Amino acid sequence: MAEFQRPRGTRDFAPEEMRRRRDAEARMRRAAETFGFGEVQTPTFEHLELFTARSGDSVVDEMYAFQDKGERGIALRPEITAAVVRWYLNEMTKAPKPIKVFYQGNCFRYERPQAGRFREFFQFGAEIIGAPLAAADAEVVALSVACLKSVGLERFEMRIGHIGVLRSMLERMGVPKEGWPACLHALDKKDFALVHEVLDRNGIPEEKGKSLVALVKMKGGLEKLDEATRLVGELDGFAYLRELAARLHCLGLKKCEIDLGVVRGLDYYTGMVFEIDFPSLGAEKQVCGGGSYALAEVFGGEPVESTGFAIGFDRVLIAMEKEGKALKVEGPEVFVVPVGDGATKAALELATSLRNSGISTDVELMGRGLSKALKYADSIKARKAIIVGERELAQGIVTIRDMKTGAQETCPLADVARKLKD
Amino acid sequence: MAEFQRPRGTRDFAPEEMRRRRDAEARMRRAAETFGFGEVQTPTFEHLELFTARSGDSVVDEMYAFQDKGERGIALRPEITAAVVRWYLNEMTKAPKPIKVFYQGNCFRYERPQAGRFREFFQFGAEIIGAPLAAADAEVVALSVACLKSVGLERFEMRIGHIGVLRSMLERMGVPKEGWPACLHALDKKDFALVHEVLDRNGIPEEKGKSLVALVKMKGGLEKLDEATRLVGELDGFAYLRELAARLHCLGLKKCEIDLGVVRGLDYYTGMVFEIDFPSLGAEKQVCGGGSYALAEVFGGEPVESTGFAIGFDRVLIAMEKEGKALKVEGPEVFVVPVGDGATKAALELATSLRNSGISTDVELMGRGLSKALKYADSIKARKAIIVGERELAQGIVTIRDMKTGAQETCPLADVARKLKD
Repeated sequence: MAEFQRPRGTRDFAPEEMRRRRDAEARMRRAAETFGFGEVQTPTFEHLELFTARSGDSVVDEMYAFQDKGERGIALRPEITAAVVRWYLNEMTKAPKPIKVFYQGNCFRYERPQAGRFREFFQFGAEIIGAPLAAADAEVVALSVACLKSVGLERFEMRIGHIGVLRSMLERMGVPKEGWPACLHALDKKDFALVHEVLDRNGIPEEKGKSLVALVKMKGGLEKLDEATRLVGELDGFAYLRELAARLHCLGLKKCEIDLGVVRGLDYYTGMVFEIDFPSLGAEKQVCGGGSYALAEVFGGEPVESTGFAIGFDRVLIAMEKEGKALKVEGPEVFVVPVGDGATKAALELATSLRNSGISTDVELMGRGLSKALKYADSIKARKAIIVGERELAQGIVTIRDMKTGAQETCPLADVARKLKD
Repeated sequence: MAEFQRPRGTRDFAPEEMRRRRDAEARMRRAAETFGFGEVQTPTFEHLELFTARSGDSVVDEMYAFQDKGERGIALRPEITAAVVRWYLNEMTKAPKPIKVFYQGNCFRYERPQAGRFREFFQFGAEIIGAPLAAADAEVVALSVACLKSVGLERFEMRIGHIGVLRSMLERMGVPKEGWPACLHALDKKDFALVHEVLDRNGIPEEKGKSLVALVKMKGGLEKLDEATRLVGELDGFAYLRELAARLHCLGLKKCEIDLGVVRGLDYYTGMVFEIDFPSLGAEKQVCGGGSYALAEVFGGEPVESTGFAIGFDRVLIAMEKEGKALKVEGPEVFVVPVGDGATKAALELATSLRNSGISTDVELMGRGLSKALKYADSIKARKAIIVGERELAQGIVTIRDMKTGAQETCPLADVARKLKD
């Protein structure tokens, strides 16, 4: 019956997978706290306007948007940055600056479910609000890398660009402002024929367009900035990227890949933009994206310097799997099996005393015989079984069985916890 | 602007509160894992039918229910048990039994926001599916208590009843089945005048109603079961509750409070039911509720023994606050302050090396002078400040300041991490 299936594009996470997810979450959280970021959590849904204010009504089609019973437009959040900025404007404008926060949470999009894309998905992200941009940008870029490293990942590539560079170029080329979004969109898609078409439509000669296309194709070390300067002259963003790279060097990121073609889909970015890819993930290789943005004024607040990133948590899990870094999930340390009705009480008491001393302990609840119970213990990956037999109990002993080797030894009931902790 | 406020009845959690919540979550998760339960996570929304199948269409009014773009009825989950049973039916019917799982997640209800009641709220719960009930009921009851104790709570009261007892009574009294829901509802509200009215409507003489009311007023130790037997004769549930109490005794719950008046609002309970209250919380004192239930067959599956509980996580946090058990939140261990432009590089490098050795380290990003930077360090509750001065740097030293006492000492730059770890 379809109504008793989970909704399309959503997932159920079973215990093994949840253990891996919680482990990765905890590591990334620790990384963020080590950088002096504090966690925030905002509601799962927001007023629809929070998302349409920036991007227009067209985004409604891509969201889980609905009316609540008060006929208020509501949307399941498609991302979390807008909510963090709203929180800042609602409650934190008077707080000492900067505001350094991170979040981990679920987001929603309404689109055809496909491999690796889910309607409910998970993000880990961070924002710095109210700090000078070069310092703050360097801090968030360094944190994004630290988060990925915290879960053992290494085979990723970071590319840093600057939206301001492209905007300055368009301005200098004389492209009217109305033409910028279409042009940036074409640049984002690396559809250079379309770029030329858009420029042509805006009356810009093809020769000028060639410099723009050459610029967004520039990708490499810091020397690319010199090359770019030779090509189009000095632009504000170039000096900024040099300063950022120097700061990143101090923060341990010795190699800085410049890519002036990083445009980012979201239209709220204003300055530095960056992306992190895992080439091994193929079509879904982009795992992190971020940059500095202007949202506070869109929500009616005073402008404030803001920068951040979001990591696709689901892809991190896939990358960890690929790189062999996912947590090896083990079952409980102990599975207690009573043998004979008279042993149930002692088995429960033993389980309780082991649990009280912090040893993860499961216990046979089904009344199965020894061999079936051991089979179950095996299926849940218990490391040891403790067999509590009526006859042995009379002598005050139990049997400890190593579930991997099958080796068994007897042990006084009172010494089990100590023995297991050895 | 109202559209840039959070929706009514929702909350933003700032970093201090989130630290306390994550700490409590982690403790409760550890308690459940120590009992051999594994975590599951189901989607935030489900098909509407998952919730109406059991409770009828009337519950739609209390839910965030909406139509997705495929005109499918969707609801933000009001609770998580139904989803766990759906998951079991979809994927786990062939898995070795029992299924012992727990969850922590957000739930939603559409009602007028009021003190202590939120439209988005958080639950921690556990279920055992497919184990004989007395064994499984004892295990989940013991876990619910262990979860509350894991966060330091002690001043709670647990009451155990049995819906089967009341149903047997109604049957024996000759109340027609159609009359049961209204009668149980009146019993749940402890509205005894209404109980008599309902019985009267069903043609039951007042005398018989008195025994029923006397039964649901019974509350106390196991001896209440003897009293109840003298009053109404032996009922199935009595023997069951005695067995359960014996098992709970083995699991460390030496005192078992029987309350035959525990009815529980949800209509899917079938056997044992229990509630845990914190009297200190006043009107919102109930923090946990659970019992054994029949849901699999409602969703078109084979019947399977099922039992579980849900803890109101938000109330746990309030109780922890009241009992002085909430985590004392501290800021980063270190706040690094460069003094003079020439010190920035060294300050960032120092912060990076401290972070790499696992010391939580924030760093001045605003370019403030020393006294303003220290004021900020104080506001974020940093424990130490490390002052990196241009002049001291020339001698390879920095100053470590204890933010509580104000005591300062110098330290060679290379020894800072070691010094802090002492």
